[in-house]
Amino acid sequence: MRNIKLTLEYDGTDFYGWQVQPEGRTVQGVLEKSLGDLLQESVRIIGAGRTDAGVHAKGQVANFATESELLLNEIYRGLNALLPSDVVVRCAEEVSVKFHARYDATSRRYLYRISSQPTALRRNFVWTILSALDLGLMRKAAQALMGTHDFASFCLGSEERPNYRCTVQQISLKSIEDEAHFQIAADRFLRAMVRIIVGQLVEVGRGRLTLGEFLEFLQKGGNQPSAMAAPPQGLCLMEVQYLHSARLAKGESR
Amino acid sequence: MRNIKLTLEYDGTDFYGWQVQPEGRTVQGVLEKSLGDLLQESVRIIGAGRTDAGVHAKGQVANFATESELLLNEIYRGLNALLPSDVVVRCAEEVSVKFHARYDATSRRYLYRISSQPTALRRNFVWTILSALDLGLMRKAAQALMGTHDFASFCLGSEERPNYRCTVQQISLKSIEDEAHFQIAADRFLRAMVRIIVGQLVEVGRGRLTLGEFLEFLQKGGNQPSAMAAPPQGLCLMEVQYLHSARLAKGESR
Repeated sequence: MRNIKLTLEYDGTDFYGWQVQPEGRTVQGVLEKSLGDLLQESVRIIGAGRTDAGVHAKGQVANFATESELLLNEIYRGLNALLPSDVVVRCAEEVSVKFHARYDATSRRYLYRISSQPTALRRNFVWTILSALDLGLMRKAAQALMGTHDFASFCLGSEERPNYRCTVQQISLKSIEDEAHFQIAADRFLRAMVRIIVGQLVEVGRGRLTLGEFLEFLQKGGNQPSAMAAPPQGLCLMEVQYLHSARLAKGESR
Repeated sequence: MRNIKLTLEYDGTDFYGWQVQPEGRTVQGVLEKSLGDLLQESVRIIGAGRTDAGVHAKGQVANFATESELLLNEIYRGLNALLPSDVVVRCAEEVSVKFHARYDATSRRYLYRISSQPTALRRNFVWTILSALDLGLMRKAAQALMGTHDFASFCLGSEERPNYRCTVQQISLKSIEDEAHFQIAADRFLRAMVRIIVGQLVEVGRGRLTLGEFLEFLQKGGNQPSAMAAPPQGLCLMEVQYLHSARLAKGESR
């Protein structure tokens, strides 16, 4: 049995998210279909993170087990030929059978883009906010999220977990031309967590929430049904990191 | 009678180009429809350039005459509310009745993006070329286009004009991450001219055409049915310039 790791880019606009659903086109679904056609066997794919409908990825990671003897390069080229144009395999690697895209990930990094101008060309990739945002205040609020916290209040209500602790490893908010770029890396993310963080930060930036109220919100812990989630199209999963990824690799094709 | 100048951004992916056609959705068509609904009169729009199907614009300019007494800001906001999401008015200005978006333009600037990697997120905005390109050689060829030339050989066959002289004012080819950005500004452009220039430059970059052959092609003059045009989605009309635009402006809204 071989274990293949894929690094994937996709445009989430026309997908009902990553995870296979009873109905609706999903990234996992089109990948498993194309892999099945290519390898002539039924394939189950494991993704590092389950992006929601409309959310994009530049560096999603997934793995699958296969009995196929196709060369890595044949898998890479074959998949890219079979996949629809809104999903692209950036890299295919053969890794240890122990590698698990979700459990072994030590860090995931997301980018959220906010545009201060109406835009046609970037409409599927930004949240447009025409009112002025106090980025300095938003940066202060964001910094308070660094380190380990219980993020239950930044999690979509329906999710039940043994614990809601996440460790934020990196956080930044940069102004780039007419956009604000919010980046966050953490060991794990709860459901809709980045979008709720961005939604609450924007409330701070608009002056509707004070810095103190933002910190209180973080400390509340329990689910906050009132929490405003930023719309999905501004969000992109940029990168997933693993320990010892070099040791796991047996070869790669890109 | 008032004369209104619009600066427009659009995603050309789902349009049959700028110009109204007997059938098919066009940018001019949706603009005239939204303007008609807003102003309650029949409006004819003049665009600075006729972009082809799939070609984008970040700074297309257009103007129209109207009897409407709506405030400039009402036109700007009303249009953006009525237009589909793939067309956005970036700026509305009231200008002299003499202003003509096409005839008065002194410079148009286009950007063409080439990606060296397969991409899902940028697939509607780049031409993907996986084989290596010699950008240095392409730059040399591009520089030969500076100044005034007869560009008949870089023009789509069907176009008949009194003359094919264009003055290239600015030309550059830059490497930005995994993309090559080709920019060209000229007083005017013939039909499909930028796409044929890029197509021929890529032939040079791939080593299929020597620098000498490229120069010969330019000097040939007549229509060259063999000329390879780059695909439309990599192209974007960035800016249109006018003389004395400040003098013409009576007010603006953005």
